[in-house]
Amino acid sequence: MNRAALTDLILAAKRRKKLSWAKIAAKVGRAPTWTTAALLGQMTMSQSEAEAAANILGLGKEAVDLLQIVPYRGSLPTTVPTDPLIYRFYELIQVYGTTWKELIHEEFGDGIMSAIDFDMTLERQPDPKGDRVKIVMSGKFLQYKKY
Amino acid sequence: MNRAALTDLILAAKRRKKLSWAKIAAKVGRAPTWTTAALLGQMTMSQSEAEAAANILGLGKEAVDLLQIVPYRGSLPTTVPTDPLIYRFYELIQVYGTTWKELIHEEFGDGIMSAIDFDMTLERQPDPKGDRVKIVMSGKFLQYKKY
Amino acid sequence: MNRAALTDLILAAKRRKKLSWAKIAAKVGRAPTWTTAALLGQMTMSQSEAEAAANILGLGKEAVDLLQIVPYRGSLPTTVPTDPLIYRFYELIQVYGTTWKELIHEEFGDGIMSAIDFDMTLERQPDPKGDRVKIVMSGKFLQYKKY
Amino acid sequence: MNRAALTDLILAAKRRKKLSWAKIAAKVGRAPTWTTAALLGQMTMSQSEAEAAANILGLGKEAVDLLQIVPYRGSLPTTVPTDPLIYRFYELIQVYGTTWKELIHEEFGDGIMSAIDFDMTLERQPDPKGDRVKIVMSGKFLQYKKY
Amino acid sequence: MNRAALTDLILAAKRRKKLSWAKIAAKVGRAPTWTTAALLGQMTMSQSEAEAAANILGLGKEAVDLLQIVPYRGSLPTTVPTDPLIYRFYELIQVYGTTWKELIHEEFGDGIMSAIDFDMTLERQPDPKGDRVKIVMSGKFLQYKKY
Amino acid sequence: MNRAALTDLILAAKRRKKLSWAKIAAKVGRAPTWTTAALLGQMTMSQSEAEAAANILGLGKEAVDLLQIVPYRGSLPTTVPTDPLIYRFYELIQVYGTTWKELIHEEFGDGIMSAIDFDMTLERQPDPKGDRVKIVMSGKFLQYKKY
Amino acid sequence: MNRAALTDLILAAKRRKKLSWAKIAAKVGRAPTWTTAALLGQMTMSQSEAEAAANILGLGKEAVDLLQIVPYRGSLPTTVPTDPLIYRFYELIQVYGTTWKELIHEEFGDGIMSAIDFDMTLERQPDPKGDRVKIVMSGKFLQYKKY
Amino acid sequence: MNRAALTDLILAAKRRKKLSWAKIAAKVGRAPTWTTAALLGQMTMSQSEAEAAANILGLGKEAVDLLQIVPYRGSLPTTVPTDPLIYRFYELIQVYGTTWKELIHEEFGDGIMSAIDFDMTLERQPDPKGDRVKIVMSGKFLQYKKY
Amino acid sequence: MNRAALTDLILAAKRRKKLSWAKIAAKVGRAPTWTTAALLGQMTMSQSEAEAAANILGLGKEAVDLLQIVPYRGSLPTTVPTDPLIYRFYELIQVYGTTWKELIHEEFGDGIMSAIDFDMTLERQPDPKGDRVKIVMSGKFLQYKKY
Amino acid sequence: MNRAALTDLILAAKRRKKLSWAKIAAKVGRAPTWTTAALLGQMTMSQSEAEAAANILGLGKEAVDLLQIVPYRGSLPTTVPTDPLIYRFYELIQVYGTTWKELIHEEFGDGIMSAIDFDMTLERQPDPKGDRVKIVMSGKFLQYKKY
Repeated sequence: MNRAALTDLILAAKRRKKLSWAKIAAKVGRAPTWTTAALLGQMTMSQSEAEAAANILGLGKEAVDLLQIVPYRGSLPTTVPTDPLIYRFYELIQVYGTTWKELIHEEFGDGIMSAIDFDMTLERQPDPKGDRVKIVMSGKFLQYKKY
Repeated sequence: MNRAALTDLILAAKRRKKLSWAKIAAKVGRAPTWTTAALLGQMTMSQSEAEAAANILGLGKEAVDLLQIVPYRGSLPTTVPTDPLIYRFYELIQVYGTTWKELIHEEFGDGIMSAIDFDMTLERQPDPKGDRVKIVMSGKFLQYKKY
Repeated sequence: MNRAALTDLILAAKRRKKLSWAKIAAKVGRAPTWTTAALLGQMTMSQSEAEAAANILGLGKEAVDLLQIVPYRGSLPTTVPTDPLIYRFYELIQVYGTTWKELIHEEFGDGIMSAIDFDMTLERQPDPKGDRVKIVMSGKFLQYKKY
Repeated sequence: MNRAALTDLILAAKRRKKLSWAKIAAKVGRAPTWTTAALLGQMTMSQSEAEAAANILGLGKEAVDLLQIVPYRGSLPTTVPTDPLIYRFYELIQVYGTTWKELIHEEFGDGIMSAIDFDMTLERQPDPKGDRVKIVMSGKFLQYKKY
Repeated sequence: MNRAALTDLILAAKRRKKLSWAKIAAKVGRAPTWTTAALLGQMTMSQSEAEAAANILGLGKEAVDLLQIVPYRGSLPTTVPTDPLIYRFYELIQVYGTTWKELIHEEFGDGIMSAIDFDMTLERQPDPKGDRVKIVMSGKFLQYKKY
Repeated sequence: MNRAALTDLILAAKRRKKLSWAKIAAKVGRAPTWTTAALLGQMTMSQSEAEAAANILGLGKEAVDLLQIVPYRGSLPTTVPTDPLIYRFYELIQVYGTTWKELIHEEFGDGIMSAIDFDMTLERQPDPKGDRVKIVMSGKFLQYKKY
Repeated sequence: MNRAALTDLILAAKRRKKLSWAKIAAKVGRAPTWTTAALLGQMTMSQSEAEAAANILGLGKEAVDLLQIVPYRGSLPTTVPTDPLIYRFYELIQVYGTTWKELIHEEFGDGIMSAIDFDMTLERQPDPKGDRVKIVMSGKFLQYKKY
Repeated sequence: MNRAALTDLILAAKRRKKLSWAKIAAKVGRAPTWTTAALLGQMTMSQSEAEAAANILGLGKEAVDLLQIVPYRGSLPTTVPTDPLIYRFYELIQVYGTTWKELIHEEFGDGIMSAIDFDMTLERQPDPKGDRVKIVMSGKFLQYKKY
Repeated sequence: MNRAALTDLILAAKRRKKLSWAKIAAKVGRAPTWTTAALLGQMTMSQSEAEAAANILGLGKEAVDLLQIVPYRGSLPTTVPTDPLIYRFYELIQVYGTTWKELIHEEFGDGIMSAIDFDMTLERQPDPKGDRVKIVMSGKFLQYKKY
Repeated sequence: MNRAALTDLILAAKRRKKLSWAKIAAKVGRAPTWTTAALLGQMTMSQSEAEAAANILGLGKEAVDLLQIVPYRGSLPTTVPTDPLIYRFYELIQVYGTTWKELIHEEFGDGIMSAIDFDMTLERQPDPKGDRVKIVMSGKFLQYKKY
């Protein structure tokens, strides 16, 4: 079994057991964003996290092992995503990419926002004109080293 | 003069006058993220916004007109961005794209987060282990219509 | 079974049972365009819609579950479609894309036509010089938010 | 002057003279969709249409000639459009492409909807929940020849 | 069985039975170019054509059904064909594409040669300096509609 | 002046002088297909052919030189052509490519149709149901050498 | 079994039987370059060549048939080869492509070196500073036909 | 002036002065293949070579300097070459790439043919059935280092 | 079994036996970088190296054979790597590629750093501000041959 | 003047003044790798560094300003580099990418080597079998944050 096969297995088990990501994350003891990413093959679990996940999903020993292996990351089948929900984020890069660059450099100087020392939450923001998706990202600023 | 030429002109004027995006945005009367995006050719200004921007940057009449034209959006020269700061956001899509999809569908059902009815802030988050870039995005949830 | 495999199964069942999309849509209680898209893995059915579809097509329990899962959208094997019927729509974008942009902005201001709050019909338009395909699309206009 | 340069000239003249596409189309005597496409370098005008357009836009003799030359069609700078308004149409192909194929074949047999013997209107559809963009396309059905 | 699998089956049967395309076409009652294209998954057969083909090739009921389904067209594994014989045709487009455009427009005005209402023959042209491949294509001229 | 600039010059001169390719070809003394291709930068003229072309088009000495230089061939701005007239030929390769391969191999054995020792005519084929474009291609069969 | 599967089979048999391409070529009675290309699915064998190859490699009847079928040529999995040995040849095209063009045109006029009426040897060239790979290519010059 | 502009200048000078590459190479004192590649921006000349080339071509001091700068190599405008003469070499890689790999490894073990410690000649090979282009390549074998 | 399947097998065996690359390399008697690359299908082992590797990993005879076959190199599934760790190296090429070119040419003249006669170490560099990854690469300088 | 134009200016000044990168770096007071990257538009200089560089190269006030602007990084004209020296580094990623991933994860756990908190030296390593290019890279290990 490889990691992609395990992801399919996890999705099928979740569907069959009618579990939510929120519930699985509570058992694993991590944030729902991180836990979902880990189970979709993008983050690496510790032994106890992997066992908790396997337990609630009904997965075997090989799955527990595989969830602890650092995955080859990258979850999308095409360079430009075709799925409308995911594409909107690509569109944000096209529209706001240079804006992020200008404003981060103005505030912090030359460097980047880390995508490794990074965390994120995603929640519902009630709004009378229609509820909104609120995403808060926080990444450590990393300065370009001079030498 | 086309829009790309105007963007170069704006960047040169800002550099020469040692202005910050924050200061320009205050004069325009809009958020720094929106104002920067507009001046980089990704949003459309009203007459008074365009005049305020042209005033502080020292731009002429044609610039005022061009800033009110809806632009052809998309600010990046390559499909996958080469600039490290901007690439990190593409990487987030590769790593978290399917996670966003799962969690938004779990919370809201089938639909997307709008990139049009959308706003965003970007700020410094002080942290003893190194300050962080904090980005808060808020987009209206749009449900797929059934018919 | 994944969603792509289910789509193949649906096409085979439809062929074997000599059903039409129109007839299936009538049983499902939705428009033929929406129903066909849903069965081809592009829309999400409710429990009762999925059961009606499974019933007429002779599909099992797993299919009923899968039809209720939000799919990863995007139904074409190549970036530029090779099938002549589908390519003609890509050609329309190449020829009329900037025209749509100009006319929608002229009528509505800066924003887009939603592809989510969207519906469509497709019908035969009799014509003595040869019948025509008539497609009526209707999408909510979404205005770019200023902030 | 080549055709792309003429398109820029037309857009600048329209902006300077504060003309609308609807008004230009009325002078040319053609539908707004067709006239806009023609002036954006996608359709070929007759002598009198070109003269009417040049007249209202204040263009010279070379422009009149160029508007009568069959253009090299294709108005987008990238294979997948980056502009959000135009992208939504590409997304419709990704989501509905196979649906169009199934329904046209079910109704008409093997063939395509012509993108040449084709016409289109675009109008505002008032709606209490937010006005909608309504696009009506009509293309002759062309049957695959057997031989 | 999907259409690609059927194509492999057809090629294997033809090889095993040492049939020629010419002979199969004679049984099907269509031109060799059309018949070969149909059996390679690019055209749609009628019931009687499919039965004749299945009969001579020794194919079963499912094959007869599949040959009557409109296929998703496009027979090449890469955007630019790698096979030398097929590449030469791509090269002709690179070398003669703009010539075809100029000459068809000069003779017919603005429009295209149909690839749907289209037929073709391919034959050996004896020549003392080496026999030649002669291809005659005939496609209906379709005029761009003005509206 | 490079070859691309010369091509623009030739098109402008032809437009201004209201010449047809047929007339230019008659002066050059070659077939219209070959002459058009040569003037569009895809074939190499002899001194006398170049002088005849320059004479009728009113071009100078540098043009006469450039028309005798072997060009870097390939006349299309994108890998998949966006212009509908030229695209139809690409579509023919997608639909008929494997058919050409099968039938040429069946008739001639392993080899290709030359795109170098090649000639072509393009003419109007009157038809009561609408005139047709008739293209006759003839290329020497080249057999793969065994060694 | 398709041709790609046969190639894998041939490589495995050669490995198991510890055969060299030189030895196989001697049995087949063709040059090692041609024989290797044929067994890797790029050339077409005669009945007796296929039988000789199958005999030494221990392949069955279907393999003998397949080796006589004209293959769909093109042996590389990516447009730009990733394997260092093969990439060096792509690099030669990038560095020397325009040089070949200039020198062949200077010597022969307008035309190409055939890749069909073509042969090649590859041998070791002893050299005190390190042995060299010597490749001799010979392709018939084909002149562009004028008409 | 950059290197690309110099290449255009060199080609124009060569054309105007009716020089051949062979004659220029003789003056430079290097092989025609190397000299042509150098003047087309793919190799680096010494001071005296650059002066000899500039002398015969009538180029100035800046050209002499530029010819001594190591160029950014890669002379083709597209990943897959569109020019038929150059494409044939790309086709050879597609057809013979894996053959070269097998035969070089069989003869030399694991390593590559250098494209740096490399030389080449190109000459006419008279043949009663039509003269041939003969290319002899010689590259040092480089063994993969083990460590 | 092909080489890709063997790589999966090796990764599974290493995981099951809880081996480290360092330990495997010690048994094989080569550097960890080289050994890891070899087992991931990028280098060729000798008989004794392959046997040592197979021994510690518990692989069979076919694996021993396959490890001695020169592989088709190239270990990444996309042209631009999506995995963040590997992407950083691609980013280094984007940022430092032209710097390497300038500095190597300044120090050595025209030529390249070999990627064949090449070795590398990778180690932990303790640092109070956070440990660092230290990579030392050493490749033979290869001078462009003049001829 | 934009940054690309400044890079050309810098290269021309360096050539004219016969400066070396080492000498410029000594004046700027930074390592040669960093200084070269900065002058090639990949790093951001401080005011005093920019002035020192402008002084030795003879550049004006606008250059001093531009050298202090954070650049849009990415110095290569194609996704896969065509220049042989730079390509070798891309090849190293293809051959060693997964090895780096395995060994860094084995030594450090899940995370990456920073390309931002990163430094590098490049030097000549004398060797009797031919001098070698030695590159030492050092990047901070960044651990994936769990949350």
